[in-house]
Amino acid sequence: MKGFASDNYAAVHPDVLAAMAAANDGHAVSYGDDPVTAKADALLRQQFGADATPLLVFNGSGANVLCLRTLCKPWEAVVCADTAHVNTDEGGGPEIVGGLKMLTCPTADGKLTPDGVARWLPSIGNVHAAQPRVVTVTQSTELGTRYEVDELKVLGEFCAASGLLFHIDGARLANAAAALDVGLGDLAAGVGASAVSFGGTKNGLMFGEAAVFLDPATAPPAPFVRKQLLQLASKHRFLAAQFVALLEGDLWRRLATHSNTMAARLADAVGGVDGVRITQQVQANGVFAILPPGAADRLRERWRFYTWNETTGEVRWMCSWDTTAEEVDAFAADVATVCAGGELPPMDGEPRPA
Amino acid sequence: MKGFASDNYAAVHPDVLAAMAAANDGHAVSYGDDPVTAKADALLRQQFGADATPLLVFNGSGANVLCLRTLCKPWEAVVCADTAHVNTDEGGGPEIVGGLKMLTCPTADGKLTPDGVARWLPSIGNVHAAQPRVVTVTQSTELGTRYEVDELKVLGEFCAASGLLFHIDGARLANAAAALDVGLGDLAAGVGASAVSFGGTKNGLMFGEAAVFLDPATAPPAPFVRKQLLQLASKHRFLAAQFVALLEGDLWRRLATHSNTMAARLADAVGGVDGVRITQQVQANGVFAILPPGAADRLRERWRFYTWNETTGEVRWMCSWDTTAEEVDAFAADVATVCAGGELPPMDGEPRPA
Amino acid sequence: MKGFASDNYAAVHPDVLAAMAAANDGHAVSYGDDPVTAKADALLRQQFGADATPLLVFNGSGANVLCLRTLCKPWEAVVCADTAHVNTDEGGGPEIVGGLKMLTCPTADGKLTPDGVARWLPSIGNVHAAQPRVVTVTQSTELGTRYEVDELKVLGEFCAASGLLFHIDGARLANAAAALDVGLGDLAAGVGASAVSFGGTKNGLMFGEAAVFLDPATAPPAPFVRKQLLQLASKHRFLAAQFVALLEGDLWRRLATHSNTMAARLADAVGGVDGVRITQQVQANGVFAILPPGAADRLRERWRFYTWNETTGEVRWMCSWDTTAEEVDAFAADVATVCAGGELPPMDGEPRPA
Amino acid sequence: MKGFASDNYAAVHPDVLAAMAAANDGHAVSYGDDPVTAKADALLRQQFGADATPLLVFNGSGANVLCLRTLCKPWEAVVCADTAHVNTDEGGGPEIVGGLKMLTCPTADGKLTPDGVARWLPSIGNVHAAQPRVVTVTQSTELGTRYEVDELKVLGEFCAASGLLFHIDGARLANAAAALDVGLGDLAAGVGASAVSFGGTKNGLMFGEAAVFLDPATAPPAPFVRKQLLQLASKHRFLAAQFVALLEGDLWRRLATHSNTMAARLADAVGGVDGVRITQQVQANGVFAILPPGAADRLRERWRFYTWNETTGEVRWMCSWDTTAEEVDAFAADVATVCAGGELPPMDGEPRPA
Repeated sequence: MKGFASDNYAAVHPDVLAAMAAANDGHAVSYGDDPVTAKADALLRQQFGADATPLLVFNGSGANVLCLRTLCKPWEAVVCADTAHVNTDEGGGPEIVGGLKMLTCPTADGKLTPDGVARWLPSIGNVHAAQPRVVTVTQSTELGTRYEVDELKVLGEFCAASGLLFHIDGARLANAAAALDVGLGDLAAGVGASAVSFGGTKNGLMFGEAAVFLDPATAPPAPFVRKQLLQLASKHRFLAAQFVALLEGDLWRRLATHSNTMAARLADAVGGVDGVRITQQVQANGVFAILPPGAADRLRERWRFYTWNETTGEVRWMCSWDTTAEEVDAFAADVATVCAGGELPPMDGEPRPA
Repeated sequence: MKGFASDNYAAVHPDVLAAMAAANDGHAVSYGDDPVTAKADALLRQQFGADATPLLVFNGSGANVLCLRTLCKPWEAVVCADTAHVNTDEGGGPEIVGGLKMLTCPTADGKLTPDGVARWLPSIGNVHAAQPRVVTVTQSTELGTRYEVDELKVLGEFCAASGLLFHIDGARLANAAAALDVGLGDLAAGVGASAVSFGGTKNGLMFGEAAVFLDPATAPPAPFVRKQLLQLASKHRFLAAQFVALLEGDLWRRLATHSNTMAARLADAVGGVDGVRITQQVQANGVFAILPPGAADRLRERWRFYTWNETTGEVRWMCSWDTTAEEVDAFAADVATVCAGGELPPMDGEPRPA
Repeated sequence: MKGFASDNYAAVHPDVLAAMAAANDGHAVSYGDDPVTAKADALLRQQFGADATPLLVFNGSGANVLCLRTLCKPWEAVVCADTAHVNTDEGGGPEIVGGLKMLTCPTADGKLTPDGVARWLPSIGNVHAAQPRVVTVTQSTELGTRYEVDELKVLGEFCAASGLLFHIDGARLANAAAALDVGLGDLAAGVGASAVSFGGTKNGLMFGEAAVFLDPATAPPAPFVRKQLLQLASKHRFLAAQFVALLEGDLWRRLATHSNTMAARLADAVGGVDGVRITQQVQANGVFAILPPGAADRLRERWRFYTWNETTGEVRWMCSWDTTAEEVDAFAADVATVCAGGELPPMDGEPRPA
Repeated sequence: MKGFASDNYAAVHPDVLAAMAAANDGHAVSYGDDPVTAKADALLRQQFGADATPLLVFNGSGANVLCLRTLCKPWEAVVCADTAHVNTDEGGGPEIVGGLKMLTCPTADGKLTPDGVARWLPSIGNVHAAQPRVVTVTQSTELGTRYEVDELKVLGEFCAASGLLFHIDGARLANAAAALDVGLGDLAAGVGASAVSFGGTKNGLMFGEAAVFLDPATAPPAPFVRKQLLQLASKHRFLAAQFVALLEGDLWRRLATHSNTMAARLADAVGGVDGVRITQQVQANGVFAILPPGAADRLRERWRFYTWNETTGEVRWMCSWDTTAEEVDAFAADVATVCAGGELPPMDGEPRPA
């Protein structure tokens, strides 16, 4: 039995591992000038457009900082939701390592709106203020919500009209695309984005994300920025092989659809439980909820998951490509039990792992 | 047939790949709080000392910047050879991303000496100058040479006497330890180092290096620095599994010994060829040489390798864990042929890959 | 007639200029090792305590970044009001040049509270988050309000109890001390601060602020940080002479009292005008107000001042050491006129200057 | 009697001080939007060309970092002499605060040559190396030498042909222009420079340098960079007034000519003294020399000056606008006395100040 702590607790999909093993064949030119990388690039361009320039990096923070630092000059700044991963969960890397000031907007559901962004527009041209240059949104969001395609288009148009660039933090772009039943590119160039961080680690890869530049005019410096950010892999074929496996045969969509389905199943199962309040719309692979006092702690004797908000006690339950329906049902049953004040039945054998 | 371009063109050792596959078992806590990481840490402490604090990162640049940024305050600087990888081959990352000024010393063989370092001591206390704080040496060096244990001890003592810390860039530490027939720790805490970057990628791993802090007093901030530098892997067990495989049963030593042996074999084979001048002592897994005009280009029709010095035409030939004696001999024969002005015989079937 | 745009539109007080001229006597050792600097340092220690270490810099942004960068390690962050000058008006310098992440708190009146700061405490020890390290408050605030001494003490104690350091951005510290009728040190070490930026430019100096470190343990790196931040003046005596003039005979208090008095007079005069809403308590030398539509524009035909909030139309009126009661009264009369829908009488001669 | 320690020990020229006092007239718009700044800008454009964009800053380090950071993108680097002020004497500010990697060239006389720069050209396009983008030279140099106009032109043409920009660190540009009997612009746009740091502090100002952008295409971001670098003065008129005084009536040339003449006089007077070896050509306002053992220490009982090279004992004697012929002669006589092994005669009254 697996927990609901994070989609990055999940294993690597066997097809991905097999592709890595298959790439382990003799010598290959390092730093990306190899045939596996060429194939990954072609598959990424198939998704994101013939004009796209993909660069693979080690992790999501790397992809975000690579995109944003490439799009911004040192005196330019990034507008984001105050809950954005790039603002809260990257250890100050975007600011201190990436040289990016974050201009934050409060949101209720993790989603930026033109009105939120507009607050920062008066700074443009004011020499005393960092200059807004890129708007970044997370799709699907850190709160398990997602932007509709039209919402992104409206933001993209607003950015264009305001002289701003548009970036998508797509650590879970696959979940959003699967849920919306659109292509990855429909959430990238299709909505006017200049660059997208396309995540793999949370969707079955071992490590690796793609920074995809959609505007040929902004892409050329990106390889230099990637190197300087310490994000250039030497045995690059092993990054690339994972993306080949993920994109070929739309494995990405199958995995994301599965994790989304598990989250919906979980929300369905616990939504009616007395004392459980689901706090955000369940639109991707995460469920956010507030439980009766003490319930979370008792659940944690068996299941691993995180508290999202220390003040309200809101918890986050993430489903992943390898979450099973049986696990969801067992967990939901345990939720119902503890919320009803009951005791969890004794476990057979080992305590449930993370 | 494989070339001699770089030890990072090499494949992943099968034991390493097998360990990664074995780690792919259900969920594991991310970011390093998992049992595989605990095991890797224990093995690293076995090598580097019970007081050592190892942190795994994605690549060698990451390990170097993590070590140096943790040891230096923002107004402090790093003394290094002007040929040091950290100075020349990390795309300005140490300065721009790591916030580290490099104070360089010219060397003939890539090896720092106390006299070279001493040049920077008058800056200490001078508010107009970046403050020398860490001396970093590469072991084995970028020029295929290595420090004897006593040479490192002298440097370590000089640093201690001068109020400086001592860091070892050990991207190829295994090659040096194998060649010197000492333990990894004998080249780290044993010579007075405060931190060492212990490389794996050039010695059979897929990706991954260890930043090992040897002084418990300087280690505590390192996890924060690693995160900020974008070098914290989420599915950390797959980094760790590689180090477990490398360290268990001293695989690291066997692989490094092999690549060293291949370099010695190559040097022996070409050292007597008319027109070949070996330019550096062959003390690890690389051979540096100057060939007669035109010879390198003709060799490159068959074998991939890099020019090291555009001015002198000096070339670099690197051996790796998967270089075979047959390949060395075939290459040496081709060197002899082209240096004698002969034609390379036609190849059977496919052109030799990189 | 002078306007109400900013206290940095004001002239230099004649005593300050005279002190600069007096310092212009032959050669003096540069970079602060001169007798005028020694005297300024002594006077600053008289105000801020015998343990204080003052460093003079060119401007307020410089003082703030010097203080905060000295107190924070690169992975540590600064908690501030979202309206703090250091967050909004220093062009991204604190982040990009100072390497400081800002953790912001919304406030109604520009004043931080322990509750606001507490929001960031759960990040402590969380490797994914920039680590809160310093709380900075502006005294008097950017909104013309001020902290009572006890409010600062409560914040200082809260910081100490939370393992945080406490910094005062005192660009207008003199205005607060004058208004509260306390000494400068009562608002610095007296409230548990580790460092204070003591401003001069807005209170009669030509240029120059003092970064004063109150804790001898944190001060030693500050000279290196100042130099690296490009804030070390070569002909340092001319910075120092200004502080000597400001501090001798409590000129600072007389000037600040005057500008406070002028702001109070202005608030009194316009507070009762129909259509004028004073939006913040007038506790220092600024008045914030919302006027009837169109009134600000008509006033601006004669008087220079800034809009503070583009959305609400709120305006800011700053008084300075050289603002006269006559100017305040004339301005207030014009406010009353335009708010009543009247025409401003024709001016004699020249248009009113900035 | 004044010493020969530095041209920044000198006083402020009375005309400069008078101009500052004259500018102290009522309110003026801050941050440079005032008539005195407009006048300074016009005078600077008169010198540097109608297309020039001048920005005033507090000090020379500020001017250099402003110019270089504006011209370089974050992955681009600066080629300079290893003795360049920007490399050795700015406390790591260019790297750590400015985000600039320095690519250094050894020189005998502080002067870069195309051959020295050429060493870095192979890095262009190599993603592993910081990308050379700007060549910076110091005119006159840190070693008291100067470039002939044609030498600069050759460098400027070499830069243009190599796709590099060209920057002049002109902290002592006035000394070079006076010595060469050319205009300031002849050493700036006239030699193909993109930007120049035009110094004032070492030539009679109180504080202040001008970063002058000569290419309208590169200038627009400079105001944002200046602000972010903490170098935007609020009471800007007092910076500007100094430049007005310096440029009107060519005061700059008179002062620089005087200090150059004093250095030549000193070199003449001590050049023939037994035991004195003048180590660099005396081409501006500094004299570099090696004295017999012990001589420098005995001279220092009376005169202040710096040791330039701790290893060789080489000393530096700087003349300034307020150095008198009488002082030069007295100092030269003392040099002769101590070199001959004689005793310095007793001083009348006070010891000679700095």
